[in-house]
Amino acid sequence: MSEFDLIRSYFANLGPCRLDVGLGVGDDCALLDVPEGRSLAVSMDTLVAGTHFFSDCDPAAIGYKSLAVGLSDLAAMGAEPAWSTLALTLPSPDPVWIREFSAGYARLSNAYGIRLVGGDTTRGPLSVTVQVHGFVPSGSAVRRCGARSGDLVFVSGTLGDAGLALRHLLAGEAVEPDLRRRLEYPTPRVELGRHLLGLATAMIDISDGLAADLSHILAASRVGAELDLARLPLSPQVAEAVAASDDWALPLASGDDYELCFCLPPERAIQARELARELGCPVCQIGVIRPGSGLECRLADGSPLMLDRLGYDHFR
Amino acid sequence: MSEFDLIRSYFANLGPCRLDVGLGVGDDCALLDVPEGRSLAVSMDTLVAGTHFFSDCDPAAIGYKSLAVGLSDLAAMGAEPAWSTLALTLPSPDPVWIREFSAGYARLSNAYGIRLVGGDTTRGPLSVTVQVHGFVPSGSAVRRCGARSGDLVFVSGTLGDAGLALRHLLAGEAVEPDLRRRLEYPTPRVELGRHLLGLATAMIDISDGLAADLSHILAASRVGAELDLARLPLSPQVAEAVAASDDWALPLASGDDYELCFCLPPERAIQARELARELGCPVCQIGVIRPGSGLECRLADGSPLMLDRLGYDHFR
Repeated sequence: MSEFDLIRSYFANLGPCRLDVGLGVGDDCALLDVPEGRSLAVSMDTLVAGTHFFSDCDPAAIGYKSLAVGLSDLAAMGAEPAWSTLALTLPSPDPVWIREFSAGYARLSNAYGIRLVGGDTTRGPLSVTVQVHGFVPSGSAVRRCGARSGDLVFVSGTLGDAGLALRHLLAGEAVEPDLRRRLEYPTPRVELGRHLLGLATAMIDISDGLAADLSHILAASRVGAELDLARLPLSPQVAEAVAASDDWALPLASGDDYELCFCLPPERAIQARELARELGCPVCQIGVIRPGSGLECRLADGSPLMLDRLGYDHFR
Repeated sequence: MSEFDLIRSYFANLGPCRLDVGLGVGDDCALLDVPEGRSLAVSMDTLVAGTHFFSDCDPAAIGYKSLAVGLSDLAAMGAEPAWSTLALTLPSPDPVWIREFSAGYARLSNAYGIRLVGGDTTRGPLSVTVQVHGFVPSGSAVRRCGARSGDLVFVSGTLGDAGLALRHLLAGEAVEPDLRRRLEYPTPRVELGRHLLGLATAMIDISDGLAADLSHILAASRVGAELDLARLPLSPQVAEAVAASDDWALPLASGDDYELCFCLPPERAIQARELARELGCPVCQIGVIRPGSGLECRLADGSPLMLDRLGYDHFR
């Protein structure tokens, strides 16, 4: 068995069988069937060693997260995940590394019923590109451009945990396991996203920080927003860090939250809150959409927070 | 305009508009519609600097070839190309490099009517991952597993040109422009592949050398094959190199041909030859499928060529 055969064996049957996969790994192409009345939603993301994760990061976490970031994109459109493809570039075919990577990838694939249907394995500096494929009722996807003045702005989960974990790691400090899990094993909000179809007017997943990602909604919808920073959902650790140093960049502009930010008219707020309770996924209203443009953040005393140089360079 | 905006501008509207693209670049996912009665065929390939191309390679050639290799996979199933996604990892956002890369990518996208619908741009060692998406009538794709004893084996074009060009480049020798084009700007046999639907019993594109790729057909179809080496279609340059040193590895086991190898029953041979003539794409019968297993190659005098250590490590 060659090194390549070994790698292939880990990825040949990853994830559950699906009737809509006519042909998976092993021919020139995969053959796939999209159900009638559904559009195909696709998203592709690359994670590069040294840029998006530490080279010595747990391979299971790399495998898990490389799929999680794509699922978070599907969630942000309200799409139901179906298939993935995986391009894995490795300096050398280390069997232990590959087994752990594929176990992390399989964990999330199995949790959401996603089949790995194809990809490529090449030699080179460590990086992972994953494309996710999902279904959404034709014409119903939640886009970024539908927010209207008066809509309420919500986020799921808590903000800034992954950013705080990363900050500790970069400083060589110990990180609490809970916080580290938020960085390495983020939970894509797939169920919440799907159930917000027909409720949310605009939605995005928070990968680059709330301020930058909400700003994408505002630009696409040609509206502005006012955020009440006292309402931001923060874990005790992030709340403490913000209180200690007034460092709002942590919840507003650190990456890798993978929570959903969505807008909806006030009359749908009760329904959204009920839905979140049923799904066991906390959501929190943090602001309101206004006419005009741009994002205004207000501190607890009503004074504005200056947002210059929040967010970060997308070319990373 | 940030560096990222600049990059995005080159890829925002790449390739022709298509009615089946509900949403392209610019939201969390692209939204795509597969026509009724069609399966979706997808293939993903990665090209890494230093492994698949020289780091100082013409960026237009990298852009062109990163799409060409995927189109060649679609061709090998008989699929009609529709969309692509592109993950581009770059050490730095050099505007000139990106403009040339996107021009090469656009050249092929426009030639085949393919829209770039999404992807990712990240910082890291230079590499390109492309996924191609095409349509094939449900249940009709040409797979690797359909070859039957008695079928004739055909290839398109000529073999070994890219391998010879690469050999010259690695030796620091001058390369004729025609030969170099075969390495850097391969022609995916999309039209030939599509028209072989219903004619070919098995098909593959030759990316790792004829011997290795035909062997995939043989293994999947549980048959053997006998090749007549005197029939191999060779350019004058490759024919000369083979004659000079008896180096059959050049046409049999060097990569990057991106020609099609296909099988069909003898009674369909005339039709296939007519088709090839109409399309202006040369095809050549090089052997025959036999019961049993494995690939036998016969020299002009009828003696066998030993194939030990032909092909190459797929993990490259």
